[in-house]
Amino acid sequence: MSVTAAKGFEAAGVATGLKSTGALDVAMVVNRGPLRSAAAVFTSNRAKANPILWSQQAVRDGVADVVVLNSGGANCFTGSFGFQTTHLTAERAAELLGLAAGDVLVCSTGLIGTGDETFRQRVLSGVELAAAALSTTGGSDASRAIMTTDSHPKEASISRDGWTIGGMAKGAGMLAPGLATMLVVLTTDAVLSASELDRALRASTRVTFDRLDSDGCMSTNDQVTLLASGASGVAPEPAAFAAALAELCQDLALQLQGDAEGASHNIAIEVVGAASEYDAVTVGRSVARNNLFKAAVFGNDPNWGRVLAAIGTTDAQFDPYDVDVSMNGVRVCTAGGPDRPSDEVDLTPRATHVLIDLRSGNHEATILTNDLTHDYVHENSAYSS
Amino acid sequence: MSVTAAKGFEAAGVATGLKSTGALDVAMVVNRGPLRSAAAVFTSNRAKANPILWSQQAVRDGVADVVVLNSGGANCFTGSFGFQTTHLTAERAAELLGLAAGDVLVCSTGLIGTGDETFRQRVLSGVELAAAALSTTGGSDASRAIMTTDSHPKEASISRDGWTIGGMAKGAGMLAPGLATMLVVLTTDAVLSASELDRALRASTRVTFDRLDSDGCMSTNDQVTLLASGASGVAPEPAAFAAALAELCQDLALQLQGDAEGASHNIAIEVVGAASEYDAVTVGRSVARNNLFKAAVFGNDPNWGRVLAAIGTTDAQFDPYDVDVSMNGVRVCTAGGPDRPSDEVDLTPRATHVLIDLRSGNHEATILTNDLTHDYVHENSAYSS
Repeated sequence: MSVTAAKGFEAAGVATGLKSTGALDVAMVVNRGPLRSAAAVFTSNRAKANPILWSQQAVRDGVADVVVLNSGGANCFTGSFGFQTTHLTAERAAELLGLAAGDVLVCSTGLIGTGDETFRQRVLSGVELAAAALSTTGGSDASRAIMTTDSHPKEASISRDGWTIGGMAKGAGMLAPGLATMLVVLTTDAVLSASELDRALRASTRVTFDRLDSDGCMSTNDQVTLLASGASGVAPEPAAFAAALAELCQDLALQLQGDAEGASHNIAIEVVGAASEYDAVTVGRSVARNNLFKAAVFGNDPNWGRVLAAIGTTDAQFDPYDVDVSMNGVRVCTAGGPDRPSDEVDLTPRATHVLIDLRSGNHEATILTNDLTHDYVHENSAYSS
Repeated sequence: MSVTAAKGFEAAGVATGLKSTGALDVAMVVNRGPLRSAAAVFTSNRAKANPILWSQQAVRDGVADVVVLNSGGANCFTGSFGFQTTHLTAERAAELLGLAAGDVLVCSTGLIGTGDETFRQRVLSGVELAAAALSTTGGSDASRAIMTTDSHPKEASISRDGWTIGGMAKGAGMLAPGLATMLVVLTTDAVLSASELDRALRASTRVTFDRLDSDGCMSTNDQVTLLASGASGVAPEPAAFAAALAELCQDLALQLQGDAEGASHNIAIEVVGAASEYDAVTVGRSVARNNLFKAAVFGNDPNWGRVLAAIGTTDAQFDPYDVDVSMNGVRVCTAGGPDRPSDEVDLTPRATHVLIDLRSGNHEATILTNDLTHDYVHENSAYSS
């Protein structure tokens, strides 16, 4: 499990006081090689946190040895002082491990605007503690150290013919990735170049994390990093590796959906019969972002009219009066009118399936989202104060 | 007040059982002339209710004598039976009043998918009752008959040099107009042609109703109708009429915002320093649709990081690291970093002002929205069941 499942990786998670509870709050993942290939995707939000600005540059050459991650503060909109904190973090880790600062990636998560002197000192002390605690069984601690409002750590691993991919993720709110999502670190001992990693990572995140849209709110700190150590000595077929990576990413995306802030339903919005994959994603996302639909699911109310009102706002190619909608297996709307009675639909299970047939082609996509609940409002009305 | 404030108009509101409470549920507004000028704007949702499909055709010639409105059912996605119901409604009203069906506009509001035989019979009986009850003081009853989850009727009127504009509106949820919004009927006794009405109406709704975005959910039934009787005998300057109309529309928009489902804050998001008006609207709307920001305001939490995370998702022209944000008069963020401490901000008043200076030009716009509250979730999780 986790980021130390693949050979060649060590990790640690330590506590520095960034979390008032005293829980683990700084994590470190180190690639011991022999390969040092790396790829990463980042939030497409134009408001980017300092660690994003740093890591985008640092990973550009396809080489990285270390990822340092902290919870308890996003270090976003903290000005040049905040950027310097990220820089110092990379330098301190590099110094302790005998590496170059430019090969250290940094990720932060927590409240935007947090990044003062106290924050800096805690992160730097965390780097020292973590460097001393690195081990090949440290993945589990690392996965706990990056939690914010997550109720449990998210880990996964997958093994194929002689090689393994492991990963950890955090994310429970502000969960609507653009090009990437949340904090995720993926590790593999397969023998792969940086460009092979990059292709596989973009292909995987596009159909997994990018289709998770819990609350429509895109973060400033999203980062998914993939490191390859090559320690297995096995060079997989790129297609086989990409397929396994996509499976692992989907596993982690489902774990994120299942732990979304305040959610009581995990909703899969499956759009079929679309004229293009883009149309399918657009239609699914319009439903995932519709507060009225999400509140109805919370109330176990199969209110299909809200599905049609949502998809009618898109520019996707379909006839609004020739669409089928099924909820948990019951077709409640067909050809622009009511079909089976709504009371045949049972929405009490946490797993909820909405099937939308646009009858305009043979493309499809599934968007994962959650319902809009009292607990979501409560958690997010009291987060920073 | 209301739609009977201007000379030449009669109205009525009657009860037919469409509302289980027995409250008023069918309204009628009649223009007795001498002019019969009309203009209307409609939802830009591609999923349009049957009354929208009918009224778009009926108003095309710039002439209309009557608007029939019902609550208790949206008559949307009710197929050809539903369209026929709308047609029969117009025919019945025309017959009773000695007019042509093509000069009767119809509006419906309520649950999508509602429009069966019982619905039809109640609406038709409502037309008969309303035609018999028409009076020059009937505006108040009419404004009550179009309420759904509204807690009180919305009426307004404005008088200038010998002429008057009156209006009524309903709307409390699914409140994010595209080209128009909700159900609104505006009446004037000024002497104006249909094309003059149309220009004034589009100019007014663009900067009033179109900038109200309570919950990001666009309705299938939005319609704003403006009728002119010419009964005052006064032909105002088009600019003076348009200015008065915009003032009246803003009055009604503020009434809608103030009664939005479950809201505890009326939030005005004022964007200044924008490179274009489009940019200002885009930036304001991105904040108005951000659930995390809206939940924070509910919790009286001046979480400005969520404002920046929201506007960073837009393509508007500005530097995310050179933006000022003030909340209720306190500048909490400047030039991409914290400014005054958040605890200086008092968000307890219902009226909330967020000022965003993009420092990129001299255009501006204000978007009106509401907070995301427990009551919003509650009302919308239990609406149809």
